[in-house]
Amino acid sequence: MPVFLDATAADFEAAFAALLTAKREDSPDVDQIVGDIIADVRSRGDAAVIDLTARFDRITLTPGTLRITDAEIAQAVTQVSPEDRAALELAAARIRAYHERQMPQDASWTDDAGATLGWRWTPVSAAGLYVPGGLASYPSSVLMNAIPAKVAGVARLAITVPTPDGVLNPLVLAAARIAGVDEVYRIGGAQAIAALAYGTDTIAPVDKITGPGNAFVAAAKRRVFGRVGIDMIAGPSEILVIADGDNDPDFIALDLLSQAEHDESAQSILITTDPAFGQAVSDAVDRHLQTLERRAIAGASWRDFGAIITVPDLDTAAALSNRIAPEHLELCVADADALSAQITHAGAIFLGQWTPEAIGDYIGGPNHVLPTARSARFSSGLSVMDFVKRTTLARMTPEALRAVGPSAERLAASESLQAHGLSVTARLRKLNG
Amino acid sequence: MPVFLDATAADFEAAFAALLTAKREDSPDVDQIVGDIIADVRSRGDAAVIDLTARFDRITLTPGTLRITDAEIAQAVTQVSPEDRAALELAAARIRAYHERQMPQDASWTDDAGATLGWRWTPVSAAGLYVPGGLASYPSSVLMNAIPAKVAGVARLAITVPTPDGVLNPLVLAAARIAGVDEVYRIGGAQAIAALAYGTDTIAPVDKITGPGNAFVAAAKRRVFGRVGIDMIAGPSEILVIADGDNDPDFIALDLLSQAEHDESAQSILITTDPAFGQAVSDAVDRHLQTLERRAIAGASWRDFGAIITVPDLDTAAALSNRIAPEHLELCVADADALSAQITHAGAIFLGQWTPEAIGDYIGGPNHVLPTARSARFSSGLSVMDFVKRTTLARMTPEALRAVGPSAERLAASESLQAHGLSVTARLRKLNG
Repeated sequence: MPVFLDATAADFEAAFAALLTAKREDSPDVDQIVGDIIADVRSRGDAAVIDLTARFDRITLTPGTLRITDAEIAQAVTQVSPEDRAALELAAARIRAYHERQMPQDASWTDDAGATLGWRWTPVSAAGLYVPGGLASYPSSVLMNAIPAKVAGVARLAITVPTPDGVLNPLVLAAARIAGVDEVYRIGGAQAIAALAYGTDTIAPVDKITGPGNAFVAAAKRRVFGRVGIDMIAGPSEILVIADGDNDPDFIALDLLSQAEHDESAQSILITTDPAFGQAVSDAVDRHLQTLERRAIAGASWRDFGAIITVPDLDTAAALSNRIAPEHLELCVADADALSAQITHAGAIFLGQWTPEAIGDYIGGPNHVLPTARSARFSSGLSVMDFVKRTTLARMTPEALRAVGPSAERLAASESLQAHGLSVTARLRKLNG
Repeated sequence: MPVFLDATAADFEAAFAALLTAKREDSPDVDQIVGDIIADVRSRGDAAVIDLTARFDRITLTPGTLRITDAEIAQAVTQVSPEDRAALELAAARIRAYHERQMPQDASWTDDAGATLGWRWTPVSAAGLYVPGGLASYPSSVLMNAIPAKVAGVARLAITVPTPDGVLNPLVLAAARIAGVDEVYRIGGAQAIAALAYGTDTIAPVDKITGPGNAFVAAAKRRVFGRVGIDMIAGPSEILVIADGDNDPDFIALDLLSQAEHDESAQSILITTDPAFGQAVSDAVDRHLQTLERRAIAGASWRDFGAIITVPDLDTAAALSNRIAPEHLELCVADADALSAQITHAGAIFLGQWTPEAIGDYIGGPNHVLPTARSARFSSGLSVMDFVKRTTLARMTPEALRAVGPSAERLAASESLQAHGLSVTARLRKLNG
């Protein structure tokens, strides 16, 4: 049974605070193991990667077979049905079109003092994308990570995807090819992250690593951060639906379950102005849980972390939503735009009853890599911005230096940084002398 | 003596690679101590902060005196000379004008399928800025961190600045006031980071923490990352100057020293097409090192990490610069714009001989918080973007869902996420039924 809360109840604040701070994920402490793996890859390179892959994935590789060849990819892709391929291509086109609009603009201007100022964006030269193996190996995630990198102009994009027992995932390889990935390696785990960050004889190092992974991968990404850039460390998925009573309970139940089925630690919350509707959704969830393929996972998530909260009005719903800062937020109300304007923290908003969150996972266009665990308070989903960086530009003329130089000299003196001041003084003397 | 390298020499590649990978910083391992401090602040709140401040800063505080009052700030600010105040105000105005141009735009459009897509930027609600005490307590850094936050629209901006033995820094407080900081607390170290991240009875928690600090502060920021957002963990400062022979050796020597004087671990490198000019700069550095106030620090940095590299042409200079990915890059050549166009990785570029790097530290307008240790390969300096986050928006119409929904159903099926597919199927059935 999920929690039922009433925002007008006397004990609501305590119950809601408990919901906000519930620890949903027990991260095993794998940091030491991961540290050893990274050190091994740094010192032994390919040999370490090959040994670790034999141990964890039960396949024997050589430096020559670490990479999945273009011919192997072409062969695997023939196993993808035309319909699946068309779906991937439509998704890729829509994701590309959305992300192309994110490309930031350069700027340059001359100010009153005569200084020319601005900035310029350049792509990361090489990026690595981690793709999990097994159950969580999602071709949609390949598109969502690879396309923003390619739109940004990343020249070299490498994927690592473990292939336990040597089994390739044709859909993942098809997605990689559609997205324009340059290299694919059949390795995984912390050893893959180490190889991408530090390089081996066979795998050139990258500058940025993105993509989801298990606890080992997450720990490895944390450890190589600084050496390379990383995206966020994603936690279990979450959805918050705000719905009035004028909705189909079945739609909302399935939306809640579409997060719950990801992971036992996922969290699905409904906030509604209509208690009867809340009950109808609860009933619909229970009904679907009887037949859903992943009912064990979805049922556990819903039982342990699900919640249905009734509120007196939508203002209260917006205020609670902003405290949750949800990864995914569906607004199934008459005026979704008006409610959306009240939302200050959310990874992605889905407006109206015809926009199930699953559309955003696959085909809407916006990225499905989004901030979890309340981090939408301070961070954004994956985007083109993750694969570019800004260089600031400044040019002083003699006149501009005369205008602002003396203030720099004074501030340098106040901070006891004499050479800073002298570097300005020497120039002003020459200009004035 | 700095290293002298010749890019055409047979052993250059090895020597340059050694320069690139030289470990300049020995971070003491304070992680366990910092973990204990954070746990203490989380469990005992104000009492822990007060105890730790008594121990490290030798002042006895109460919950009522943790915060520096507006009256205290006003009193301290009276000690700032009108000239220093005017310099801070000019710097603030220029930094604000530059950063106001960084504010990203919202977007909304309707695509061919009839879907309305877009995104919206919102500010972080509350930010905390760490300001070091003692020698490295720089009013310019207060401006550089606080102004982008305020430009972004951060409603609540709190500063923590340790005051060892109770001594306030009037310039830091003046800068805080000019920048529009809302709260100032006289605490520092890991306990300040913990208080900002988790909150105490007196100090409300923030969502994002920025600002420089010592090893304890850096370790604490790493630990609270995820609970709150953080900016980069900055390493020792660096400058690369690319200069032809048509420059004043004195200017360039002082520019190199203005980084060297920051820290014994700082690194200053000159790349020049003119070996005689390189020697002249080296001589000028030695001359200035005889009298510079911070000659012990600057001398050690120049001796241990300084380098003068001669190259046959500016193309080679640009290629080496891109491998270094410098924090600060001065281009003192006849056509600085043309050379700048070849630079793919740099935190900030200073164009032409009248733009010493120190102008960028104080008064140019661009931010002086920049990526160090080659991280300009994948990251950018501090900006308004660090204090905003993006919410993606999507609205499907019935027509749009009919157009793209079937592809979402197919991809959901391919990933064995049945509820994802059903959430689309249920809607299509109702639309079609």
